[in-house]
Amino acid sequence: MSFIHPFQPLDAEEVLQAAQIARAVFPGKSPNFRVITLQEPPKKLMVRWLASQDLNHNDVEKPPRFARVQVVLLEGEGPGQLYDLLVDLDQSTVVKKEHMAGKHSYIDSNYMRAVEEACRADARVQAEIDKLNLPIGSTVCIETWAYATDGEIATEQRTTMCWFYMRLMDHPDTNYYAYPLELCAEVSEQLKVTKVYHLPSAADERASEQGRPFDHRKIHSTAASEYHPVLRPPPRSSTKPYQVVQPEGPSFQTSGNFLTWEKWSLHIGFNYREGLTLHDIRYDGRSLFYRLSLSEMFVPYGDPRKPYPRKAAFDLGNDGAGINANNLQLGCDCLGTIKYFSAWHNTSSGMPLKMPNVICCHEQDDGIMWKHTNFRTKNAVVTRSRVLVLQTIITVSNYEYIFAFHFGQDASIHYEVRATGILSTVPIDLGDTVPYGTVVGPGVMAPYHQHMFCLRLDPAIDGQNNTLQVEESHAMPVDGSIHNPYSVGYTTVKENVENEGGLDLDITKNRVFKIINEQKINPITKTPVGFKIYPIYSQMLLANADSFHAKRSEFAKHAIWVTRYDDEELFPSGRYTMQSIGGDGIESAIKRRRQDPGSSTSVRNEDIVVWHTFGSTHNPRIEDWPVMPYEKMTMSLKPVNFFLGNPALDVAVSTQAMNKSVLDEREDKQPKSCCSSRL
Amino acid sequence: MSFIHPFQPLDAEEVLQAAQIARAVFPGKSPNFRVITLQEPPKKLMVRWLASQDLNHNDVEKPPRFARVQVVLLEGEGPGQLYDLLVDLDQSTVVKKEHMAGKHSYIDSNYMRAVEEACRADARVQAEIDKLNLPIGSTVCIETWAYATDGEIATEQRTTMCWFYMRLMDHPDTNYYAYPLELCAEVSEQLKVTKVYHLPSAADERASEQGRPFDHRKIHSTAASEYHPVLRPPPRSSTKPYQVVQPEGPSFQTSGNFLTWEKWSLHIGFNYREGLTLHDIRYDGRSLFYRLSLSEMFVPYGDPRKPYPRKAAFDLGNDGAGINANNLQLGCDCLGTIKYFSAWHNTSSGMPLKMPNVICCHEQDDGIMWKHTNFRTKNAVVTRSRVLVLQTIITVSNYEYIFAFHFGQDASIHYEVRATGILSTVPIDLGDTVPYGTVVGPGVMAPYHQHMFCLRLDPAIDGQNNTLQVEESHAMPVDGSIHNPYSVGYTTVKENVENEGGLDLDITKNRVFKIINEQKINPITKTPVGFKIYPIYSQMLLANADSFHAKRSEFAKHAIWVTRYDDEELFPSGRYTMQSIGGDGIESAIKRRRQDPGSSTSVRNEDIVVWHTFGSTHNPRIEDWPVMPYEKMTMSLKPVNFFLGNPALDVAVSTQAMNKSVLDEREDKQPKSCCSSRL
Repeated sequence: MSFIHPFQPLDAEEVLQAAQIARAVFPGKSPNFRVITLQEPPKKLMVRWLASQDLNHNDVEKPPRFARVQVVLLEGEGPGQLYDLLVDLDQSTVVKKEHMAGKHSYIDSNYMRAVEEACRADARVQAEIDKLNLPIGSTVCIETWAYATDGEIATEQRTTMCWFYMRLMDHPDTNYYAYPLELCAEVSEQLKVTKVYHLPSAADERASEQGRPFDHRKIHSTAASEYHPVLRPPPRSSTKPYQVVQPEGPSFQTSGNFLTWEKWSLHIGFNYREGLTLHDIRYDGRSLFYRLSLSEMFVPYGDPRKPYPRKAAFDLGNDGAGINANNLQLGCDCLGTIKYFSAWHNTSSGMPLKMPNVICCHEQDDGIMWKHTNFRTKNAVVTRSRVLVLQTIITVSNYEYIFAFHFGQDASIHYEVRATGILSTVPIDLGDTVPYGTVVGPGVMAPYHQHMFCLRLDPAIDGQNNTLQVEESHAMPVDGSIHNPYSVGYTTVKENVENEGGLDLDITKNRVFKIINEQKINPITKTPVGFKIYPIYSQMLLANADSFHAKRSEFAKHAIWVTRYDDEELFPSGRYTMQSIGGDGIESAIKRRRQDPGSSTSVRNEDIVVWHTFGSTHNPRIEDWPVMPYEKMTMSLKPVNFFLGNPALDVAVSTQAMNKSVLDEREDKQPKSCCSSRL
Repeated sequence: MSFIHPFQPLDAEEVLQAAQIARAVFPGKSPNFRVITLQEPPKKLMVRWLASQDLNHNDVEKPPRFARVQVVLLEGEGPGQLYDLLVDLDQSTVVKKEHMAGKHSYIDSNYMRAVEEACRADARVQAEIDKLNLPIGSTVCIETWAYATDGEIATEQRTTMCWFYMRLMDHPDTNYYAYPLELCAEVSEQLKVTKVYHLPSAADERASEQGRPFDHRKIHSTAASEYHPVLRPPPRSSTKPYQVVQPEGPSFQTSGNFLTWEKWSLHIGFNYREGLTLHDIRYDGRSLFYRLSLSEMFVPYGDPRKPYPRKAAFDLGNDGAGINANNLQLGCDCLGTIKYFSAWHNTSSGMPLKMPNVICCHEQDDGIMWKHTNFRTKNAVVTRSRVLVLQTIITVSNYEYIFAFHFGQDASIHYEVRATGILSTVPIDLGDTVPYGTVVGPGVMAPYHQHMFCLRLDPAIDGQNNTLQVEESHAMPVDGSIHNPYSVGYTTVKENVENEGGLDLDITKNRVFKIINEQKINPITKTPVGFKIYPIYSQMLLANADSFHAKRSEFAKHAIWVTRYDDEELFPSGRYTMQSIGGDGIESAIKRRRQDPGSSTSVRNEDIVVWHTFGSTHNPRIEDWPVMPYEKMTMSLKPVNFFLGNPALDVAVSTQAMNKSVLDEREDKQPKSCCSSRL
């Protein structure tokens, strides 16, 4: 058997093998395989093995290869029963089989299609559709959403919310979000329509049994609400082609999922839930992070009226960033010289399922890295900045998210999120407005909502034992207690965080969070080596602390969390978010440890994890309609007194010989503009 | 005479003409011409003329062409006398001549060279240098800085601070900031050395008469402190070439300084002080901004010890972003197909002085603009985002700033600042540390400092009369006073600002500042059309309110200011910042108007100006040494309910045919890394 690196995601053979092993513990049953994924090795074993490999020693055994398997068993009319298994692929045995009573796996798209069909086939639904008196030639589109816990439905069985839209034209890529209907249905786990009702439309309206026919005055031009080019007028033709040429190829090398670029090395991981993950990230051979990943994402809507509070999606826990990753296309999703990485998932019967091109890897020019002109000699030295981009894009129903890690030659890491796609819409009466949404078209309201992301940073700054340090910049006192004769001095005040917990940003104090290694002192600055978090400043969760939204998304309460490392603590809202009722999140875990005399909550000089919560309070603007231009958020990690100087000092100076730019020497042209007459 | 657009900066002929006219009012004198620049037309006249031009009417006269001229006259031993003139170029007359008693023009580089020479020639300085016992072969480098007011020296005459450094090697591009000396001198306007003293070195030391010889143990390897390639080991060779090809040329057109690109049109301005300015910015023919410019920048240092509080630079008011603009080079400062704009300044004798390539204009790929995959049909639609970049780079002694406006196809404007260059350093004893600076090399301390920028936004959102609106996102009450049954609702609360003043950011409330036109209501959303400010979250000035730093930089107190438009109010710390004592800034101007019964301070539905203060509290890290990798700050302006939908909806879909990306099909290579052995 060829060597498989412990961080390498499962391949097709391993998926197949894991399914076979797992099947054996369910004799006579037909398990629905929800997940077959790599169970990453215990960190302790892995760190020891990596260290021995660095020394070229072969005295430490490679950690065993495990798969994590989730299956659902259906038994009669009862709810599906979820089992979580650990499969030892080396020994071909199931080492752990846990029945997760009352818990649910992530969204099953086959099942969702069945829900849609059941809903469409329901006589009461059909009767209500008939009563709507929709335009001739239109069709009804049913969008299924997982039920977000609101306390009104028991959560042991799955409930699915069906939202109704209309396709005005008979084209499958019509933007049906332009015609939200007032109809709504609930479907049980057994595919029975349990409720049909009508959505509120005006601000003071409530969901009701009684519907009204569709208001035909809401019908509007396709140009305003379609995004697909075949349904649109011809595009602007002013944008001339722009191409990236790398005559000697890209500057990165790969071996399987191991990647090196400039002074970086890292392993690329991928799983159904987090999508892209990064492992054992080093710069110039020095360890920086053991693992980086987007760990959760929560999108609660702010419309208070029933049933809208049921719109609150855990896009990772419920939907999966991996399983919803796009098959990326050359020249569309990335520009330049592109390397794609594919991944393996599984079918419900346990067969391997290839997910092609879920990650793209390429370089980008990033403008000037550093420049200085000696004003005495007029000599300028300029270097350009090159970044390596690892990008994945996911579609979660209406929305898309573009996630990208950017690596810089100066040892900086940037994590960029772009939100795009289509707003989730609800009906509104013509002429009405509401204070919790924006009218983006005739009868179309886009409710306010938040996107709360949580990036998990598992640091290994020059070693596994790190500390979170909070630094603030304070004006020096002017009371004479300290030498500050002109009242302009300021100093930094540093505090090392001692215990697990959540912390807030405060720009008024220039509060900065650093991950430091207190055992490694920079010989020049005399301070611990560290990396600094450049956060995304965002409003935290608006839902009341007593609401299910808040209880289910504890991470969305503070911008920074620090916890002790735990192999099983990867998800800040818990492993099972589907119809969760709260108490499974990061805050509860910390609380449990605080109350457990056998647990430590110390995070000083320990193997720690830092979580950064950020997001956007997305109060839609009409410019987000019918498809959103990206809304970008970027956080960064940069060395702070980690090296002995600028790590990009050795980047070669920029030259025209290498960059082959072109001087635009066209004669002035009369610009085409309404104002050209005055020139 | 050919047509000159009123926004066009002065050309060589006009500079010459203005000087001739100005000279006539100083018979028998030899005026030192500090400034000969365009006096932009009064806005009222200009707006009327632009409107008539839009309608192709010729009934409104073109505003008269004025130059603003600043001269300094030297009379005997007294201080130079500053005169500010307005010159009517059409009528060839001086229409205003003002003697600015006690005020100073910006830094005169010829004069600064004379100061340096005078300092070097001074016997006492020479004696002190001798006492330092510097290494054989080294040379002393004297850096002159304008004196920042600290209350200790009368400000009527110029005082220059001379800081001493050592060049260890005899190479003109040696980084002398690596050897700050403990010597310091003050030079009077009459080029007399008035004081020589020794800088404090340890935290508890004070400036003193008594010096110590240079500590030769501070001498260190050049590799750690040099940035110039000829003084460095060979650079990394791993970065392969990356080129941008635009086979059909760029997508922009120009006519003089008038530029159109995609749906944008604007006029490019340039002056000695602000550098790049933008005028009459429109999208799709609709007016957005009358003028955008960086209006001031203040860099106070946080070291409390005398004489360091005298390090506090107004990089625009004292130095000038225009006069210090770099001559940009193809393939180094910008990549792709580049158009350069040059500008005219003047010599001290009033001759035109060309400043070549002070602005570069080019396009950049900006990743994905918007994407949606219909999960039912699997059809993906992707458009890429192209931006137009207008960039200028300035060198202010040790530092460089890269300023760039980015225009998006989605009607967004981004203003990006990159700080790079070399830290200003001071001496420190070996082994010592201070709480207001970072030791970046042996005996080299980089003091903490702030960079406070002020971007001036002169909006014209669908017309000149606009309003600043503050919007916050608030959780709805859960006390039953309003329908919020699940405690998850939230709404936006909007307040239109009534009076001039300064305002703060507050991310906890998602406080958003919009510039709206209350007279223009979006027909779909039913809200005023507007543009939203995406600010840069930054700590405001740390210096105490009673300090000269604070009094001189009033703008650095709040992140957002709104004022009534005034043709003469372009600079938030006043027109004359050199050795200013405070009271000339934006807050004082507002206060004066509030106390003047004849003045209005109403900013509701008025011609307003919005100022955004942002910056960085720059506590250096060793990675900023010996030259800083860029530190980037970006603020954005985006339409909010201004259009009827996504303005980039008509951008053509991305295709490989246009973008010609390359699939990286190389076989996996053994990556070169310390870890390769384990693969």
